[in-house]
Amino acid sequence: MQKFIKFEKSPSIISCYSVVGKHEKEGPIGECFDEYSHDDTFGKKSWEQAESEMQRMALRGAINKSGLNNDEIDLLIAGDLLNQCVGSTYGLVSFDIPYIGIYGACSTCALGLALGASLLEGGMCEKCASVTSSHYCSSERQFRFPLEYGGQRTPTSQWTVTGSGAFILGKEGNIKIKSAMFGKSVDMGVTDINNMGAAMAPAAVDTICSFLQNSSHRVEDFDMIVTGDLGYEGSEILKDLLLSKDIDIRKNHVDCGLLIYDRFSQDKHAGGSGCGCSASVLAGNILKNMEAGAIHDILFIGTGALMNPMTLYQGQSIPSIAHLVHIGR
Amino acid sequence: MQKFIKFEKSPSIISCYSVVGKHEKEGPIGECFDEYSHDDTFGKKSWEQAESEMQRMALRGAINKSGLNNDEIDLLIAGDLLNQCVGSTYGLVSFDIPYIGIYGACSTCALGLALGASLLEGGMCEKCASVTSSHYCSSERQFRFPLEYGGQRTPTSQWTVTGSGAFILGKEGNIKIKSAMFGKSVDMGVTDINNMGAAMAPAAVDTICSFLQNSSHRVEDFDMIVTGDLGYEGSEILKDLLLSKDIDIRKNHVDCGLLIYDRFSQDKHAGGSGCGCSASVLAGNILKNMEAGAIHDILFIGTGALMNPMTLYQGQSIPSIAHLVHIGR
Repeated sequence: MQKFIKFEKSPSIISCYSVVGKHEKEGPIGECFDEYSHDDTFGKKSWEQAESEMQRMALRGAINKSGLNNDEIDLLIAGDLLNQCVGSTYGLVSFDIPYIGIYGACSTCALGLALGASLLEGGMCEKCASVTSSHYCSSERQFRFPLEYGGQRTPTSQWTVTGSGAFILGKEGNIKIKSAMFGKSVDMGVTDINNMGAAMAPAAVDTICSFLQNSSHRVEDFDMIVTGDLGYEGSEILKDLLLSKDIDIRKNHVDCGLLIYDRFSQDKHAGGSGCGCSASVLAGNILKNMEAGAIHDILFIGTGALMNPMTLYQGQSIPSIAHLVHIGR
Repeated sequence: MQKFIKFEKSPSIISCYSVVGKHEKEGPIGECFDEYSHDDTFGKKSWEQAESEMQRMALRGAINKSGLNNDEIDLLIAGDLLNQCVGSTYGLVSFDIPYIGIYGACSTCALGLALGASLLEGGMCEKCASVTSSHYCSSERQFRFPLEYGGQRTPTSQWTVTGSGAFILGKEGNIKIKSAMFGKSVDMGVTDINNMGAAMAPAAVDTICSFLQNSSHRVEDFDMIVTGDLGYEGSEILKDLLLSKDIDIRKNHVDCGLLIYDRFSQDKHAGGSGCGCSASVLAGNILKNMEAGAIHDILFIGTGALMNPMTLYQGQSIPSIAHLVHIGR
């Protein structure tokens, strides 16, 4: 059984900042993002460098909003989807802050927040930052095909969000991280690289069930139960699987991958995905609504698929994971 | 300035276990490793699966030695060099323990121990495990050339260790993690993928200097100052750079990459490297010597190069990092 970590010292999110690409800016919640690039290059010569630049912009924005200086941030927790997490390592080297690299695939935002809150709670730091990103063009080249190939996408495939979110954590601030749960990895035998939602949904089920069993909370306690990027396929599977265990989240479930694009006008198939999906939607949209008082308590569950293309070529299935943070004011 | 984290609640290493390949078994400290494979396949069909199997063997061995059951371990902290850290994700899914994925390249062992000790100290868990690995054959294919290509190696290139080390952390045990320091990433402009030692040495200098400035410790307080995998090139650079700052570690410096192979009979060029290098040498050799009372206090500094082949093709230099843990009894 996963350990439910209740934070007594109220680690909080002092500030956050979101940066996205053109398609995300044109989507239904496009107005809420803090910064964007009209051509997804962010002024850089390669997609990988564009992704690093997004992280740099996001962290700089979050630090500026917090009113802190770089040297007041004790730890930087970051990771992304690129091989060896180079979006983060190249993006953040100039900040000169002690760096903890993490890898949780698309669950990275939730993993970083859970880890940051744990280190704050334990007194290992006074302030820390959590950053992540994904970029459609660098991801497609790495995980599927270069864009120039013009490959056709299956209906269950998701569209990697070009976006980054950065969060500054400390002890002051209205928005608290109240508890967290690190997920177990789960492998249900899904082998379709074009159906990440199906691979990740069972991990979300596992973590949500453990959280509800371990804490005294019920589904109704939360204004929203937010999953990271299950998309249309994975969200339906999640709700069905939970319903079979008498847990009904249909009224308050939202998925960041469904919020970020318009299903009909934007043709993104099964919805958005990627580390940057949940990070930019949480920072740009959900936490702003919480700051404004429109919502008070959410469960934020980041989901990640822990394979790489090589393991699938070798016939293995896709292990996945879901990390949870309870955020409220 | 990096924050020096002094642990008051004495997180300790309850048990550890090392697994290596054929060349490592044949090396000068080969007798000390707990388990090995005579053909580096570990009975698997691919090198990636062999690497996962090593992690499985190492964690199983460490758990058995600790006398605990899987479900008494609250958290599993793991990562490796493979794209998307699949050595760990596939290797450890069957343990059914909440999983924190980390990425620190070859610094992963030190990063995992520092993070595990921090989470224990903060009360986020009662027991946790830290695991990492590298495999010569999976690394060569991914970072350089497939072995079948028969590429020639430059004199400064290092040999990725086929090995894994697993550590169980808790609060009982003679061997304590007394303090830790998370490193900053440092980029000194090195672009040679065949000279990782030169890229990583400045990060080790940065972390060692910060540690000595922040703590009340002097070089002489330690029986050994152990770096992970700087090899012959990087170790000389480290000692020279420190000497230029009036810090002389020549008497007590050892590098895991120099301990594991014989320079003359094994033809490994600049020494061993990889996440599995420092992990297997620490678990198999150094901590056994500490347990036996031959050494009492060490600084263990894991060094990592945070690039990938793509960023080097794109003309970027190599950022690197060094995380430090002070281990003693």
